[in-house]
Amino acid sequence: MTHFRAEEATEDQIAREAALYAPFTDAVRELADATLRTTVEDDEIRAVQAEVEALTARLRASQIPGAYGVRYRPSGGGRAWGNAVVGLRNPIAPPVAATVDDDGRVHADFHLGAVYEGPPGLAHGGVVSLILDQLLGQAAGAGGRPGMTGTLTIVYRQGTPLGPLRGEAWIDRTEGIKTWAKGHLVGPDGVTAEAEGVFILPKWARELLAADTPDSPTLPDRSYFQ
Amino acid sequence: MTHFRAEEATEDQIAREAALYAPFTDAVRELADATLRTTVEDDEIRAVQAEVEALTARLRASQIPGAYGVRYRPSGGGRAWGNAVVGLRNPIAPPVAATVDDDGRVHADFHLGAVYEGPPGLAHGGVVSLILDQLLGQAAGAGGRPGMTGTLTIVYRQGTPLGPLRGEAWIDRTEGIKTWAKGHLVGPDGVTAEAEGVFILPKWARELLAADTPDSPTLPDRSYFQ
Repeated sequence: MTHFRAEEATEDQIAREAALYAPFTDAVRELADATLRTTVEDDEIRAVQAEVEALTARLRASQIPGAYGVRYRPSGGGRAWGNAVVGLRNPIAPPVAATVDDDGRVHADFHLGAVYEGPPGLAHGGVVSLILDQLLGQAAGAGGRPGMTGTLTIVYRQGTPLGPLRGEAWIDRTEGIKTWAKGHLVGPDGVTAEAEGVFILPKWARELLAADTPDSPTLPDRSYFQ
Repeated sequence: MTHFRAEEATEDQIAREAALYAPFTDAVRELADATLRTTVEDDEIRAVQAEVEALTARLRASQIPGAYGVRYRPSGGGRAWGNAVVGLRNPIAPPVAATVDDDGRVHADFHLGAVYEGPPGLAHGGVVSLILDQLLGQAAGAGGRPGMTGTLTIVYRQGTPLGPLRGEAWIDRTEGIKTWAKGHLVGPDGVTAEAEGVFILPKWARELLAADTPDSPTLPDRSYFQ
């Protein structure tokens, strides 16, 4: 397939790409999990390594020159397929798929496996902050207040177990170009960590807001740039 | 190879395992990068996916039942090979290898590739917090004050570019069971983000400290549990 720059891609083409890349990326996520947990013999490790290297060479026969960036849909939505938390094409993303509820809050149900471990059996404290940063940013974006993270504070209430988790985030208040978003992760025993972040409206968004009319595009959510 | 539970493994065996697993894990990291960046044809994607799935099945023929946990060396040092930031066997870890300097400060030079992206060309803000949490925790541990993260605050000064970066962390002060650690990431244009974290001494460490004598083991660093 020609790798469509999304500016040129139709919604159908994007759906077709998603159907191709989502299961492919999932397969590489499974390989990463198996790489960490395997106890097969040394010779088998070396044999698998050689095959992995050969597959990498086949994929690199044609590739984009640098990072993925954010591709844009004709409809105006961002396509953050490279994003380290939500990216459909990023094997290190769990991935976390957030839904915007009717009241503007964002929630996501997701699963953290062995590769997200810090303390034994628990998610790494930094993985907790990684996911909360993303969810708070999406909540800000969903409320028409996209932004780069200015500050982020995490309060850890208890260890976050690996396995099924829920994340929730919402806008707490706004003031000028700043948006305060809050959120938390919830495990089987309740809230494990709470977050507050300040998100700063970028210059292009301020200009769009200033020029906003009923016919102008609404502000895109944060997937454009995070 | 029998996957040695480290309690039974000698230093030689551990060195041999590292020589086996470090290049293997690096190969899977390269595959993850290529998975995100490839632009090869659809049929080639499907063919590579099938081969990845076959390799995963070979690795899963024998594996540990859950997450990696922390294995212990006979010498008493922890072996956090599963850790999401520093883990030698974890394909999603960059990895970040921190060095403890003579003055007790911790520093690490590392490289972030395409899979760590948030905003186009920049590290995800949550990846910044992920790495800083780890470095602050290691600084606390290096100073004999290991702990689980209690709170973590990140102040973002500028976007953190993908590519070569340096992280630094140190203990700012201690009070009872709490340790305040600080740190930052530095890119080509200076400090990109600053962090402060409070780390809480766990119960087992308090007991070890209370019982400390010249013959007793020194407190292990945080790699035991993070």
